[in-house]
Amino acid sequence: MSLTYEGSGVDYDALDAFKRACQRAAATTTDTLAAHGAREADGTRGESAYLVETDDAYWAHVEEGLGTKNLVADAVYAEAGRSFYKAIGVDTVATIVNDLVTCGASPLVVAMHAAAGDAAWFSDPVRARDLAEGFAAGCRDAGAAWGGGETPALRGIVVPGALVLAGSALGRVRPKALRIAGDVREGDAIIALASSGVHTNGLTLCRTIAERLPRGYATRLDNGRTLGETLLDPSVIYARFVRACQRAGVRIRYAVHVTGHGWRKLMRPAEPFVYRLRTLREPPLVFRFLMEAGPIEPVEAYATFNMGIGFAVYVREGDAEACLRVAAAAGYEAWRAGTVYKEGGRKAVEIEPLGLVYDADTLQVR
Amino acid sequence: MSLTYEGSGVDYDALDAFKRACQRAAATTTDTLAAHGAREADGTRGESAYLVETDDAYWAHVEEGLGTKNLVADAVYAEAGRSFYKAIGVDTVATIVNDLVTCGASPLVVAMHAAAGDAAWFSDPVRARDLAEGFAAGCRDAGAAWGGGETPALRGIVVPGALVLAGSALGRVRPKALRIAGDVREGDAIIALASSGVHTNGLTLCRTIAERLPRGYATRLDNGRTLGETLLDPSVIYARFVRACQRAGVRIRYAVHVTGHGWRKLMRPAEPFVYRLRTLREPPLVFRFLMEAGPIEPVEAYATFNMGIGFAVYVREGDAEACLRVAAAAGYEAWRAGTVYKEGGRKAVEIEPLGLVYDADTLQVR
Repeated sequence: MSLTYEGSGVDYDALDAFKRACQRAAATTTDTLAAHGAREADGTRGESAYLVETDDAYWAHVEEGLGTKNLVADAVYAEAGRSFYKAIGVDTVATIVNDLVTCGASPLVVAMHAAAGDAAWFSDPVRARDLAEGFAAGCRDAGAAWGGGETPALRGIVVPGALVLAGSALGRVRPKALRIAGDVREGDAIIALASSGVHTNGLTLCRTIAERLPRGYATRLDNGRTLGETLLDPSVIYARFVRACQRAGVRIRYAVHVTGHGWRKLMRPAEPFVYRLRTLREPPLVFRFLMEAGPIEPVEAYATFNMGIGFAVYVREGDAEACLRVAAAAGYEAWRAGTVYKEGGRKAVEIEPLGLVYDADTLQVR
Repeated sequence: MSLTYEGSGVDYDALDAFKRACQRAAATTTDTLAAHGAREADGTRGESAYLVETDDAYWAHVEEGLGTKNLVADAVYAEAGRSFYKAIGVDTVATIVNDLVTCGASPLVVAMHAAAGDAAWFSDPVRARDLAEGFAAGCRDAGAAWGGGETPALRGIVVPGALVLAGSALGRVRPKALRIAGDVREGDAIIALASSGVHTNGLTLCRTIAERLPRGYATRLDNGRTLGETLLDPSVIYARFVRACQRAGVRIRYAVHVTGHGWRKLMRPAEPFVYRLRTLREPPLVFRFLMEAGPIEPVEAYATFNMGIGFAVYVREGDAEACLRVAAAAGYEAWRAGTVYKEGGRKAVEIEPLGLVYDADTLQVR
């Protein structure tokens, strides 16, 4: 039987019901902004970052969590004695900041939340130092200051020996015209930015697969690296790319941080479009390994993992070449992956070379 | 034997070592702000909110967690079938926002982080709805919009059935002169603001005590209410008080959110002063109950719980009366509790009516 993400323990239905209850309750608070001479930015609800508009700027706020990736780091640390917590620190910043920049905000401040089951977690000096240094490195890459943080020990809430890693960020869009506002149009080019590996999504499924392998995280991939170290490659942070586009005058119409729901996320804009992908690049080796070991069918893999695309932007056809040049100059691997089509009210992601089609009802994240 | 907070499982030493490592690493990121035309506000490191200075304002950012208070709500829900998750929602906002306002910031946006051990937590419609409504009510009281949020299910990290509750906030100080900058002076008046009960600190100790009682959370206090419902009284949010002082021109020189470390927090300013408290009010009944049931000696109780003071501000002697009037008009119970003294390099909190003295070495939170 092919492995699916839902089968590995993440029930999106219950989560999404609560999320919708939160969205309803949150809507009752929006009026408070008027007393500050501010207002909620049009269309910000349901996007990856929450935007408040003031006279001369938008202010962006994101709260995000790493998920379960650090359980992989814990297992590798226990088995092989190698700490990958520097990468985990980068990952934590990446998962927050890559959401933040989807609205065009420049990250100003990032805060860390590290909740342990007992304070003993923090007693290991190697792991603790690595986490702090990795988080700082991620902030520098994002161009943001590491502000505050919170490091509680939550006995009875967090599993002893485990750590909840999360955080938040504050960003600014100024001038306001730099907002990535979601004005996608038929014929827009889909620019894909390469990921470095699994980043921070689909880790529950990765762990399930690793647990079934005779050698677990020590299993060697074809390139000789272990599964553990490969899964723990640090995420790419796309903040410099977005900023470089803004400086070069390349207008991004929409930006997608490809996380949970995999490539289905590409149809995140509210207005219906068909996102047709024609040019694929070979995904990082880890994905072929996971698909074989699972086994995971392609339809499930592309609906779960980033499959080599960590971030995507939609730009005017005429801006596509400039966008690719900007990405390359900023040190990112990027390519023209496809085109946006208008087909009436239809919303879908089509991966033509693989014959995969995801319709709107497979994505309920707004 | 008298119960102490450290004895109930919270090891501040390991936590503080990690906190210091984070502060060192965070300092390497501060220079990034220059590229944004911004800078770190002088003296903000080590304070409860992180402040970034732009040309016309300070921007405040806080990441905070509820701690373990929701375990009490879970136990009462399981035993008595009563959901107190509306109060828990208010508490979560309070713990974030009361930190934020200590620098004089008005809260603009608050985000919720609710990480469960499994998505089943969110399937209970009563508890989930109460949490969402309470969080929204807290935001409205704080005058802030509930922006985004994050609701992961973290199997293997969060205990099944439990919930990590946390969040973050964005605030603004404008004009900049409204910043609460910490310019405490000898002779300043200490204004205490009443708490509604334990708020969100010392809950690990409360739970230890409740577990030892034959009737647990169902134990009746002298006023007939149960221990469970009393512990779950929602926290006071002090945002309206700070804003009312600013509007009335009452300059707050320093503000303390009395949380972990209890009244020791009153000596949080970096410069050494002696904070002498002469006028106590009868703390809420729950504290007398906890001290008897523990038993907890006064020296430990005032070093752990808020003991009836949830927030304190230091103002010029000449502003004390006006501050009390502003508090009353805004609906807060407040009183003149004491005075700030300069005694060379000595830093201490003295509670004169009880003969309690806490020296600087009993507080290591900066």
